[in-house]
Amino acid sequence: MHKLSILEMNRLTASEFREAEKTPLIVVLDNVRSMYNVGSVLRTADGFRIERVCLCGITGTPPNKEIHKTALGAEDSVKWEYYNSTIECIESLRKEGYIIVAVEQVEGSQNMMEWCDGRPMAIILGNEVKGISQEAVDAADYCLEIPQIGTKHSFNVSCTAAMVMWQYFRNYYIHERL
Amino acid sequence: MHKLSILEMNRLTASEFREAEKTPLIVVLDNVRSMYNVGSVLRTADGFRIERVCLCGITGTPPNKEIHKTALGAEDSVKWEYYNSTIECIESLRKEGYIIVAVEQVEGSQNMMEWCDGRPMAIILGNEVKGISQEAVDAADYCLEIPQIGTKHSFNVSCTAAMVMWQYFRNYYIHERL
Repeated sequence: MHKLSILEMNRLTASEFREAEKTPLIVVLDNVRSMYNVGSVLRTADGFRIERVCLCGITGTPPNKEIHKTALGAEDSVKWEYYNSTIECIESLRKEGYIIVAVEQVEGSQNMMEWCDGRPMAIILGNEVKGISQEAVDAADYCLEIPQIGTKHSFNVSCTAAMVMWQYFRNYYIHERL
Repeated sequence: MHKLSILEMNRLTASEFREAEKTPLIVVLDNVRSMYNVGSVLRTADGFRIERVCLCGITGTPPNKEIHKTALGAEDSVKWEYYNSTIECIESLRKEGYIIVAVEQVEGSQNMMEWCDGRPMAIILGNEVKGISQEAVDAADYCLEIPQIGTKHSFNVSCTAAMVMWQYFRNYYIHERL
């Protein structure tokens, strides 16, 4: 089985990426502490060509050496914005027409096992220790939860982001094809 | 919307985890360089209660300070094994009855968009720079590829592992329910 070379992958350049049609998903990071997580989210966001990433509160922004280490240049292709407050960001995205989804373990959350929502959407991901602030959870249209059956209380934030971005991408393109 | 407390999450203890029925998935790391990636894979493996993680070649093993930093104790719940060679690991898992799936960008790969295989399975993930060795790719039953439409050539290995583990978990429990 022949492994594809970098040329055979035929990827976009950063300028082609900026011009190209996007997957209508926005990722909102609510006070994420680790720059490595920010960079890793940008790298995955590049792979699925998502609309943009909103960095809120204490979340770090490019240019930054630690972000670059895990983004590997995706900070130059993916559009990003900074907001002082996550609530301000949510209000602005809602005005633009995005459904607001908090990825959090709450009573009455939507189980990601059955999740097939492919509407234009902003997903919020929370702080490594505290999760999403109660205020931001309350401002969301609904909460989405990845079922967990192990011993730990949560997944790593960049892994969570990857799982949700992947399923959204799949939902969106399946809807598009129908 | 009420955020669940740690007690309300009602997670397993490490000894309950070891006794509990597992998701019949094994993750094989083929010469993964970063201890942080190893720890992160263990943490996600805990969340989906997967069978075990096989650490091959130069891949580091617990106990290790860097692995602990991202595994957060999942190295004590999830079963892991070390193999000198990935090929030796693949041969042993095949004898146990597992389907061997290489997560790699190759000609003729199965697109993860349509992937719904929930059979007992070992998924191989490769080195951060070189990917999976050609020898290990050739030893697999088939290759699985996450579609990418951005500028970068690959996803981070722990994010890739999370996306594949999640989709396998979903496929498996959907099959189980049918």
